[in-house]
Amino acid sequence: MTDSDLRPFERAVSAPDSADADLWFIGRIRTPWTDRRACPRKGDAQDGPLCEIVLDPRWSEAMLGLEGKTRLQILYWMHLARRDVVRQNPDFGNRAIGTFALRSPLRPNPIASSTVTLERIEGTSLFVRGLDCIDQTPLVDIKPIFCFDEQPEKRIA
Amino acid sequence: MTDSDLRPFERAVSAPDSADADLWFIGRIRTPWTDRRACPRKGDAQDGPLCEIVLDPRWSEAMLGLEGKTRLQILYWMHLARRDVVRQNPDFGNRAIGTFALRSPLRPNPIASSTVTLERIEGTSLFVRGLDCIDQTPLVDIKPIFCFDEQPEKRIA
Repeated sequence: MTDSDLRPFERAVSAPDSADADLWFIGRIRTPWTDRRACPRKGDAQDGPLCEIVLDPRWSEAMLGLEGKTRLQILYWMHLARRDVVRQNPDFGNRAIGTFALRSPLRPNPIASSTVTLERIEGTSLFVRGLDCIDQTPLVDIKPIFCFDEQPEKRIA
Repeated sequence: MTDSDLRPFERAVSAPDSADADLWFIGRIRTPWTDRRACPRKGDAQDGPLCEIVLDPRWSEAMLGLEGKTRLQILYWMHLARRDVVRQNPDFGNRAIGTFALRSPLRPNPIASSTVTLERIEGTSLFVRGLDCIDQTPLVDIKPIFCFDEQPEKRIA
């Protein structure tokens, strides 16, 4: 809850009293951005800067089979985002939009999901392109992306 | 940690001692599947059965702007999956694969991510196709999918 004040038309609700589940941070993400305002709105899996996903050695065996994969889905915890905002005004416009209609970091569970290109693996580090988060962001999950996940025939033009 | 025993070649590690972050369940997902063995391996956003995402009324204002959207990304908590397995043998084969090279529910943070087709909204319920989870699965997040998230020019054939 280190975020700034609400913008015009934004609204927050009272937070739940208790947690429903625990997350374990399984590593950290190293990126070039040390200030939130410098982070891009969305990662670029082709031309974005190389970022390093540093996995906690506890989970190193779970990497078996990642070699040779090109595209991964990364989940990470936007630890600086407040969680109680239900209507947001990302562009300081004359109206607010519901949090679930945005991919903003501000959400009840501030988990971001990005598709990245895996460039190489060194030990327990994955070097990838496509992230958008501040340096030292906590890592939540790494998932493969299979071709059938794309469902090209169902894509909206 | 209600899962069955490990299969051949599977391996687990000791779990972390403490939580790093708290999740809030923001709703529940109603599906036709009341037994894990009946769940499909992957949802079908075109022909799968209609499932109901029931949002906690606390977050109802965050739905503003979802009307008219066709595709959404849903994050949910696979509450029955054990979290300590690093190598898995999903097909009872003669080897195991690393957890991060699989989209299995068993993972350190058992958060599933599916792309769904939004059919209609009624109050705080979203009726969607494309889920694969057991009835009453906890809801973690709802995100829009924008065309530029698809990055078709970067797709692997």
